[in-house]
Amino acid sequence: MIEKKERYNVAVAGATGAVGRKMLEILQERNFPVEHLKLLASARSAGKSLEFRGEKVVVEELRQDSFAGVDIALFSAGAGVSREFAPSAVKSNCVVIDNSSAFRMEEGIPLVVPEVNPDAIGKDPGIIANPNCSTIQMVVALKPIHDKFKIKRVVVSTYQSVSGSGQKAIEELKNQTQELLNGNESKPHVYPHQISFNCLPHIDNFLDNGYTKEEMKMVNETRKILADDSIQICPTTVRVPVFYSHSEAVNVETEGPITASAVRELLSAQAGVCVVDDPKNNLYPLAIAAEDKDDVFVGRIRDDISRERAVNFWVVSDNLRKGAALNAIQIAEVLISR
Amino acid sequence: MIEKKERYNVAVAGATGAVGRKMLEILQERNFPVEHLKLLASARSAGKSLEFRGEKVVVEELRQDSFAGVDIALFSAGAGVSREFAPSAVKSNCVVIDNSSAFRMEEGIPLVVPEVNPDAIGKDPGIIANPNCSTIQMVVALKPIHDKFKIKRVVVSTYQSVSGSGQKAIEELKNQTQELLNGNESKPHVYPHQISFNCLPHIDNFLDNGYTKEEMKMVNETRKILADDSIQICPTTVRVPVFYSHSEAVNVETEGPITASAVRELLSAQAGVCVVDDPKNNLYPLAIAAEDKDDVFVGRIRDDISRERAVNFWVVSDNLRKGAALNAIQIAEVLISR
Repeated sequence: MIEKKERYNVAVAGATGAVGRKMLEILQERNFPVEHLKLLASARSAGKSLEFRGEKVVVEELRQDSFAGVDIALFSAGAGVSREFAPSAVKSNCVVIDNSSAFRMEEGIPLVVPEVNPDAIGKDPGIIANPNCSTIQMVVALKPIHDKFKIKRVVVSTYQSVSGSGQKAIEELKNQTQELLNGNESKPHVYPHQISFNCLPHIDNFLDNGYTKEEMKMVNETRKILADDSIQICPTTVRVPVFYSHSEAVNVETEGPITASAVRELLSAQAGVCVVDDPKNNLYPLAIAAEDKDDVFVGRIRDDISRERAVNFWVVSDNLRKGAALNAIQIAEVLISR
Repeated sequence: MIEKKERYNVAVAGATGAVGRKMLEILQERNFPVEHLKLLASARSAGKSLEFRGEKVVVEELRQDSFAGVDIALFSAGAGVSREFAPSAVKSNCVVIDNSSAFRMEEGIPLVVPEVNPDAIGKDPGIIANPNCSTIQMVVALKPIHDKFKIKRVVVSTYQSVSGSGQKAIEELKNQTQELLNGNESKPHVYPHQISFNCLPHIDNFLDNGYTKEEMKMVNETRKILADDSIQICPTTVRVPVFYSHSEAVNVETEGPITASAVRELLSAQAGVCVVDDPKNNLYPLAIAAEDKDDVFVGRIRDDISRERAVNFWVVSDNLRKGAALNAIQIAEVLISR
């Protein structure tokens, strides 16, 4: 258990990245009780400064001895960095909340979405893993459905924004789109193909079973978070030319008899969910509307016309906020509220 | 049966639209044996001229008496126009190939994809309906699977380009994207919301069951074309910021035991299909690669990891060509080849 204090020493590893910057923003917005803030990044970014609560904070190089006196470290610098530095942080008595995929599926490491499984955080946590963005928004919506109707199978197709690939991908979509509109060619760098005005059915590497790592994250992480390995999941993850927020078309089959109106009622009462579902008035969740919002937006809730005991919905959330930085800070809030 | 001739008098109703223009292009490309070409459109467009085989053809106003002496009329001017004028064309002994939704589900009207159900065209056809774009590319891929394994259920999510909404939507995506990149606001006109850098889970009007007309077209047309009302289909149709070609993530459950490799083999032998499926080398169907191609491209063929007797694939095709103009002209080719 983290020692109860008025204010906590917090470190952000990977502070200069898209998610790291979002973490600083959200720590301020939510008035997280920060005593001292340490910004950590690679040697290349050390010396830069970022603003926090109106003051400049100089970025330091991330080292094994960076965590002395730190209570909570938020990691978002990739799986390799987490594997290299998180154990040292834990040895310094620091709780690590890790946004990378490094420890998510490791036994004994809690994988947490605070609205879904806060109790997975044990008494003496070392590393707590933050799930993948496409998983988080889906499980927030699935949780009350699973509790009430028991989910058997999920078929999900995603429409994921480029910010999930970091700042360089945001620049690539912007610059490539401008070049194409100007009638010029534009060679892709971040993605293997043009992302502007195109859809790529390819996120992260392909595995031998024909699925991508991103797709298998949705399968394995959802089972771990909902603590039920019997849930069957079939995902297709697709990158689309959108800057922020992921959208997902979700089909859910349940053991119990389910209806769209029961799901609408359940989700309307679910913390962290905002139901936007009046399609005849053109109201449904949209990527551009979810941008910079905390909620997971759900709409187009309807009975499956192809099968009994099944429903469809459309779920949208800001992948940098609820899908990453916000969820990590909500985990920190659970920690300090105990 | 259409009278056998060396060359045929052909009319195109809706000649100035995105699909109408594509029809002219394809009639030329495929050397369709046109004797005389009549271009028809609303009074507003009459007097314009379009090029055909290097000559200018003046667009005439579409009227009830426009079809005297015409053998084949290709209609693509919306359901209202088809309902108003197609019966007159048929009375003039003209075979109508109608790209609108007007007659698709009418009993006795064949709904035809030439690679799938050419025999649906009877001996003495009056109107032959061309299916909806999102249906055509899916059924071309489903047909051999249904024949061999019997399809029970399909869950499909679409990624549809703006050209499906016509020329004005193409302009809207282009102009709106430029305005947004310039930091300006841009009010939507064609769509109810911003389409640039966004995904709209809304194509055509919403019905009382919570599905859109576009979604129900995929259900009803697929059953009619495959001549099997037992096939269950659950679609989510989504507009994405892509100019040309629709992409679809398709999950198929079958009665017979199916494998991805069997599907790959079947589809490799299927007329009109091009399998692009080497994901580890970044090869899978892409909207920008399908543009201006005739084939239906299929890739990411993989066993469903959530259920026995099920597979997934990703299917992409140029919605203005195979999804509309090309399919209509292929129907005309079936007619004259008999």
